[in-house]
Amino acid sequence: MHTQDILEMTARDMAAAVGSGRLTARAVAEAHLERIAQADGPVMAWQHLDPAQARRDADQLDAQGVAGPLAGVPIGVKDVIETADMPTGYGTRVYDGFQPLWDAPSVEIARRAGALVMGKTVSTELAMASPNKTRNPHNPAHTPGGSSSGSCAAVAAGMVPLAFGTQTSGSVIRPASFCGVTALKPTFGLINTVGIKVLCHGLDTLGVIARNVGDAAACAAALSGRAELADLSAPRRPRLGVLLGTRLEKAEPSSIEAVERLARVAEEAGAEVTTIPAPAWFDGVFDLHEAVMGWEVTQSLAYEIGRRWEELTPVTRAMLEDQGRVTEESYRAAMQVLPGVRLIADALLSRFDAVLTLAAPGEAPEGTATGDPIYNRLWSVLQVPLVALPVAKGPRGLPLGVQLVGARGEDHRLGSAALFLESCVSAQGGPR
Amino acid sequence: MHTQDILEMTARDMAAAVGSGRLTARAVAEAHLERIAQADGPVMAWQHLDPAQARRDADQLDAQGVAGPLAGVPIGVKDVIETADMPTGYGTRVYDGFQPLWDAPSVEIARRAGALVMGKTVSTELAMASPNKTRNPHNPAHTPGGSSSGSCAAVAAGMVPLAFGTQTSGSVIRPASFCGVTALKPTFGLINTVGIKVLCHGLDTLGVIARNVGDAAACAAALSGRAELADLSAPRRPRLGVLLGTRLEKAEPSSIEAVERLARVAEEAGAEVTTIPAPAWFDGVFDLHEAVMGWEVTQSLAYEIGRRWEELTPVTRAMLEDQGRVTEESYRAAMQVLPGVRLIADALLSRFDAVLTLAAPGEAPEGTATGDPIYNRLWSVLQVPLVALPVAKGPRGLPLGVQLVGARGEDHRLGSAALFLESCVSAQGGPR
Repeated sequence: MHTQDILEMTARDMAAAVGSGRLTARAVAEAHLERIAQADGPVMAWQHLDPAQARRDADQLDAQGVAGPLAGVPIGVKDVIETADMPTGYGTRVYDGFQPLWDAPSVEIARRAGALVMGKTVSTELAMASPNKTRNPHNPAHTPGGSSSGSCAAVAAGMVPLAFGTQTSGSVIRPASFCGVTALKPTFGLINTVGIKVLCHGLDTLGVIARNVGDAAACAAALSGRAELADLSAPRRPRLGVLLGTRLEKAEPSSIEAVERLARVAEEAGAEVTTIPAPAWFDGVFDLHEAVMGWEVTQSLAYEIGRRWEELTPVTRAMLEDQGRVTEESYRAAMQVLPGVRLIADALLSRFDAVLTLAAPGEAPEGTATGDPIYNRLWSVLQVPLVALPVAKGPRGLPLGVQLVGARGEDHRLGSAALFLESCVSAQGGPR
Repeated sequence: MHTQDILEMTARDMAAAVGSGRLTARAVAEAHLERIAQADGPVMAWQHLDPAQARRDADQLDAQGVAGPLAGVPIGVKDVIETADMPTGYGTRVYDGFQPLWDAPSVEIARRAGALVMGKTVSTELAMASPNKTRNPHNPAHTPGGSSSGSCAAVAAGMVPLAFGTQTSGSVIRPASFCGVTALKPTFGLINTVGIKVLCHGLDTLGVIARNVGDAAACAAALSGRAELADLSAPRRPRLGVLLGTRLEKAEPSSIEAVERLARVAEEAGAEVTTIPAPAWFDGVFDLHEAVMGWEVTQSLAYEIGRRWEELTPVTRAMLEDQGRVTEESYRAAMQVLPGVRLIADALLSRFDAVLTLAAPGEAPEGTATGDPIYNRLWSVLQVPLVALPVAKGPRGLPLGVQLVGARGEDHRLGSAALFLESCVSAQGGPR
């Protein structure tokens, strides 16, 4: 099979071909290594990539007759996720070159499903705001977003069909939107997050970055054991909400238009579309995220703050100083109201198969700053499942995505609605 | 000051004396090192203990004029909690000698409060059921309980006034009861658990082991930032519930008598005591714990199960095989009902300042098996605050404790009631 044919396969087709012996894991690895050699120069998506190691691992998969839902599929693993055979630096010079003795469960479970860990992708420092080397594959003068910078850039450039990101505020959905890739950040707790550098135990979520909804959901199914996620089917007449929310003064017109246009196209394709005004409780949720994240990050990074402060970048230090202002009292108050607020949000969201909203303020900004997670933070603290779907190009020729939101636990329903919307985008000629 | 006088101080008095310069951290360390040299032979509470390192660290505290709520107080840190300057083996030969590059936040925050990390205390393998070398200080032919074996034994033998344990099922309350020490396992989430080997993200809790309620609460205040915990005062007429629950066929009469006797003494001392029959929902909670723990442990230890299986002990392997039988469906079902069950439990528990129940089936069993967490699992999955209080000696001359339970978030109220009950025990001549 030709390199280009392999690179254009879905991850699911790739796994089926490798699992049935029609394709070798080595051939899949070679195709992607070739693509990396060709494309990664200006993108710099990889923190650790050893082609010889990837070839050896691929040969071993072939030798053992690999099978499973990710058989032979190369994945990129964000460098805040621990790996036994590759260094894990958490995006910071404090831990540069650290070699864990174990794989994070998500990595081990992916390997059991047949995946080839291609390498570690670049993270911002400690999965916060301080950028590292990765650039946007659509234009290297622009940020790929963060903190899952390398994972989104690598998938966008075709270097791997799947990658792992993590989100506490907006670290999966925003860079996916900036890079023009699909991402599924499932309900909090669905995918095990042990072995991932902790910012907030109650928010951190592993998200899957892919080129299409079906691949992302199939990977989430393998990682979580929630088998139904591997079996989405687009409803004929999905119920969609459109909820732009508050703080829209930060959004570029093109981003709002992308949501509204997709809603119109979906309606023409048979969806029942309802516009949802921002609920009374909506804007207050921003403060809840700030209180939870501020207190927990300051605790979780106590050692780095207390003993390695001078080695952190100025951007990280400024962010930590800001977050350190949250008091235990306001954290406790936020934690007391959050369970109720989440139930209220679920009650609204579960009336729809998916609620469409902004994924990011607009196209990827120029420069290295990773952009504003303003339209992600609220959903992260609600612990609801999210999908980023690339839908258009913006005025500067860079990708624009939308964000789809479901009620907690309704990942399958959200994924199915996302499949419907993905087909609406394709029918319009795709995001490109 | 004489060694014995130092060893008999509360941790709070020790910190006050060191903080005000009346006592040096070095003198405190020397007194406890002397006690360790004298007592640890048959007990074997320590996984890592380097007297030279402890002396250096104490001298450094003195040189910097240490202050804070734990100034100069020697603490034992369970070996599943990561430390930058001492190896962390998680109780298993798989990771024996592993040296983390960081302190867990709980350790860093204790150091900021002035604590001297004396050493690492023995844990069972991966904080599960497979025992390691530690023996019960009251009789080395008996188990100290587990998984926080070394921490409870070290405090019981006077080797440190405070130690950190962790509990997912019954790993703090049960060994505390077996060793005759006090423990506070606060509401889930109150103390940061980053840098602690994860079994279950939704259950794992750091518990403080001490010689009295006030010390345990003061330490929890320092670790959590919940200042009010450092300031307990016993209510004059606490409202106490007595809830023995179900599955009492596993309890020795002496254990049930210890609860009933304390309730009578408390009533005579002014408490309002109410007997609570086991609620209808009570017994079903055992299954919820089993489903949550079974699924999450099997995920969280995916790497050890998948790649290091042969190095695990037979006891651990048998436990993991058993837990591996839980399906994703039953896990999901348990997670769906748990928020409601916790609210129902809180509604009952919050009618009382403390609810008295069994801490363990009886005295520490003979041999090395760590005993049955049957009377702890249910409370762990409810995420409520717990206190273990030593109250008596059993028929074999070994300690008997009781367990006090509060509603989530009511740690201060529970601690205050515990103070009342502690004074009831003292008035009777103490547990000895």
